[in-house]
Amino acid sequence: MNEQALDFKAWTNDMQARMELALDAHLPTATISPMRLHEAMRYATLGGGKRVRALLAYAAGEFCGAELEKIDIPAASVEIIHAFSLVHDDLPCMDDDDLRRGKPTTHKQYGDALALLVGDALQSLAFQLISQEKLLKSATQKLQMLHILALASGSRGMAGGQAIDIESIGIPLTRAELEHMHIQKTGALIRAAALLGAYSADDPEEEKVKAVDHFAKAIGLAFQVVDDILDAEADTQTLGKTAGKDKLNNKSTYVTILGLSAAKQLASELHANAMAALSFYGREADLLRHLANFITQRSF
Amino acid sequence: MNEQALDFKAWTNDMQARMELALDAHLPTATISPMRLHEAMRYATLGGGKRVRALLAYAAGEFCGAELEKIDIPAASVEIIHAFSLVHDDLPCMDDDDLRRGKPTTHKQYGDALALLVGDALQSLAFQLISQEKLLKSATQKLQMLHILALASGSRGMAGGQAIDIESIGIPLTRAELEHMHIQKTGALIRAAALLGAYSADDPEEEKVKAVDHFAKAIGLAFQVVDDILDAEADTQTLGKTAGKDKLNNKSTYVTILGLSAAKQLASELHANAMAALSFYGREADLLRHLANFITQRSF
Repeated sequence: MNEQALDFKAWTNDMQARMELALDAHLPTATISPMRLHEAMRYATLGGGKRVRALLAYAAGEFCGAELEKIDIPAASVEIIHAFSLVHDDLPCMDDDDLRRGKPTTHKQYGDALALLVGDALQSLAFQLISQEKLLKSATQKLQMLHILALASGSRGMAGGQAIDIESIGIPLTRAELEHMHIQKTGALIRAAALLGAYSADDPEEEKVKAVDHFAKAIGLAFQVVDDILDAEADTQTLGKTAGKDKLNNKSTYVTILGLSAAKQLASELHANAMAALSFYGREADLLRHLANFITQRSF
Repeated sequence: MNEQALDFKAWTNDMQARMELALDAHLPTATISPMRLHEAMRYATLGGGKRVRALLAYAAGEFCGAELEKIDIPAASVEIIHAFSLVHDDLPCMDDDDLRRGKPTTHKQYGDALALLVGDALQSLAFQLISQEKLLKSATQKLQMLHILALASGSRGMAGGQAIDIESIGIPLTRAELEHMHIQKTGALIRAAALLGAYSADDPEEEKVKAVDHFAKAIGLAFQVVDDILDAEADTQTLGKTAGKDKLNNKSTYVTILGLSAAKQLASELHANAMAALSFYGREADLLRHLANFITQRSF
């Protein structure tokens, strides 16, 4: 690794640790009633994951001039929404997965009913945290964040993408349909992460917010293409979750539609698109650039 | 019925119809993708229920001086959160109920996976609608509503109460534990409905908001006591949902703990407490008073 890559590695570690602390501080403690629910909410959220969405919020926030402290809660809220979606996604009526981030899924550990409530309560918590955050001085700013997050989570965002996903099991999707599904299922929340980071700045430049948005759209799709490649290639141990599930579930993926080689080519093109969104900017966009590399070169 | 009671009946019908229109207008149409999800969201929310929470929001809003138009979205958001909770509550891993408001539950109609996503997307929608409502001019006002709603839905509100509920199946609760559970499970959202109604006024009198809050706390608990009585007494057809489930599930209720007669006595006392919260007010509190009667005298 060169010096710059080492710096980015250190920044990533710092921000991941920072996010873990923020989540730990803002999730209800397991000593408060209802204790088992709170314990399970912490189990589902803490101690795992690459925190890609938080990293994106921090990088976009710094790019737009936000102090780190102001990005903590918006970034944590997006990670909490993501954690909620994983808990529900893993339930027997959805993907029926036993393993997540190298440990038993929440419903395996706490039962299906409590896992359902963990997801529900985490979604509420994400909105609660932004609504009460003292470091964000402007009500308009918080309201904008809440609006972006609600849209990204809802029927035209994450939940909608999941609905298309489950409805299409066994039905081959076209590439356009697959893209539409992923833009909602994972893209919307990744885009929200970047925008919430950007809006953590008191008065972000409009051009910079636009650049962040374009960047996040491209990188959000790249993220999913890479996920499909990883699922097709990796074994369960490396992935920390059950591998090969897509094939098992007869799901359309970029690999099933395009083949492995063309899927990798697409990931490279999306990476280039993301970089192009930052072309007017110098060093101040380097964290975002490194993040694009981090996301698209996760394991190949 | 006397004239006043007839007027209240007409008001109730008007507000229920008004809420149906508001929900119909603000739920995504089933012609927009993902169509089946949107259809199921509408199925779960429209065409049924007494809309007690909306009635409470309208009555509290009028009491505090809000125009009806401004109460529509806050009231609809609470009804949407309520609908989401019913969909998840009816799932096989929770109460496993087949019948709701006289028709098949959402998961019976659309499958468990889609019903899970219906609940998730409805929760997001509730927050989205308030965050984007144009009739509420002040960002602070909307933010306060979002905060109240997020707290009421979360682990210290509705989801927390449901967690205590499922954890206590087969374990007899004390009366204090039962009360604590219901304050979270149903009380929190009923209180939120009243407060969101009150805060729909541009600048509500602090004393009136306090009166609404006290009223809602008492009536929220009364509502649950009456629910327990109805579950113990009514048959499935009258109730519109499967009756006798509490006994079947070996759940503690006010009837199992206090007996039927003392439970009815408690409902009367809570009704009196709710009325006492309005004692300083004249005719302007009559809608709230009628609503207290409506809630506690539903079927006995």
